[in-house]
This record gives sequence, C-alpha cells and structure tokens, in this order.
Amino acid sequence: MSDIDSILSRARFSDDGLLPAIIQQWDTLEVLMMGYMDAEALRRTLTTGRVTFWSRSRNEYWRKGDTSGHVQLVKQAALDCDADTLLVSVDQIGAACHTGTRTCFDADVLDPVVLKDAR
Amino acid sequence: MSDIDSILSRARFSDDGLLPAIIQQWDTLEVLMMGYMDAEALRRTLTTGRVTFWSRSRNEYWRKGDTSGHVQLVKQAALDCDADTLLVSVDQIGAACHTGTRTCFDADVLDPVVLKDAR
Repeated sequence: MSDIDSILSRARFSDDGLLPAIIQQWDTLEVLMMGYMDAEALRRTLTTGRVTFWSRSRNEYWRKGDTSGHVQLVKQAALDCDADTLLVSVDQIGAACHTGTRTCFDADVLDPVVLKDAR
Repeated sequence: MSDIDSILSRARFSDDGLLPAIIQQWDTLEVLMMGYMDAEALRRTLTTGRVTFWSRSRNEYWRKGDTSGHVQLVKQAALDCDADTLLVSVDQIGAACHTGTRTCFDADVLDPVVLKDAR
C-alpha cells in the first residue's frame, strides 16, 4: 500500500471532514452504493480489508456488515484527480442496500430523455 | 421519463443545494467521475440528454464537453435508496477526466490491505 499518512494528508475532505466513497463490485462492476468516510474511516478501510464509513445520521463509525452480515471486502481503492472522491472496489457479501436490494440504485430508475441520433 | 417535478421534489439535495452524481460508462461499466448537480442541473441532465453539473469551483453550470468536446450522452439514471445520490449511465465521448485520462480514478491507485482468507 501507498503510505497511509501520505494518503490521509493528500485526501481532500470537505468542510465537514468527509470524503464521499463510491463502492463498486470488483467483478460485475455494479455501482453498489455511496457512503462517507472521515480520515479515521478511510484509514480503517485501507488498512483492515473491511469497508468502514462514518454514518452522518448516527454520528458513529459503521463497519459495513457488522449488523447485517453484508460485509464489503476491500479489493482496490483509488482517489480521483482532485483527491476529493474515493472509489473502492469490493467483494460485496449479500445485499449492499439496507432495503435488501443488491445495490442502492435498483429501486428508483428515472428513464431520462435519451438523444436518439447521438452515437 | 418519470415526471420531472416529482423527481426534483423527492431528490434530497444537501444543505448547499447539491446532489452528488456518479457517472458510469454504460457498456464497460467503468466509474468515470463524480460531479455535483443542483436542481436545475439535474433537470437539464434528465430532460436534454446531456450531463450538466454545477461547478462548485466556478459557481456556474457546466455542460460536460462544451469546452473539451468530451460530452456525456445520458443513457439511464437512478436515485439511490435515500434519494441523496444519483447514478448516471452515459456514453462518454473521449476522456472523462480533465487531465486527459479515461476516468478520474486512473492516476492515484492506493493498493489497500486485502484480506487473504476472505472469499
């Protein structure tokens, strides 16, 4: 791993101290969910093999799967070009969404306008 | 499309009026980038076929590709279970990242600790 202190210092947390983290299934490439990490949650995620978030609603650390069993095993991670967003590749055990669906994006599909003559 | 006013009313924008939008290539499923939309940018994205963000650094609407030519053609979109994150499936023309790489997550790969005995 890249040096954890170096990562934590270059990650650009927002004013509330959080970094959005996109969680993607490593093999199917489904986008499973998005969560938020503070510096400590990011450190735990990168050094323990288990995805850990900061829960904005409960104001506590939330190691995904500790209650539900639906753990996220870390496979890879990357910061984006501005270092203000994290992408984590995981092996998701069971449902990623607390509603029981595989991903958090399964239930509210919007069917936007699609240009017919493009590509 | 679902009724645009209904979508705009159920989307849960943050205190600064923005919704994070994950942009994913529709066929390869690469996560390309993340941007932010206010209600008007979301309306434009869902009704015009072209992804439009609110630029937090420039404080203006930013229709992806107008300067670079690297447009994002909307294919599908979904709100997550809390309606506070958007996932947009697009056809990305050229590089998604302003640095010239295909995605914004190509340059800073972190190589986290991976559990050896899991799955």
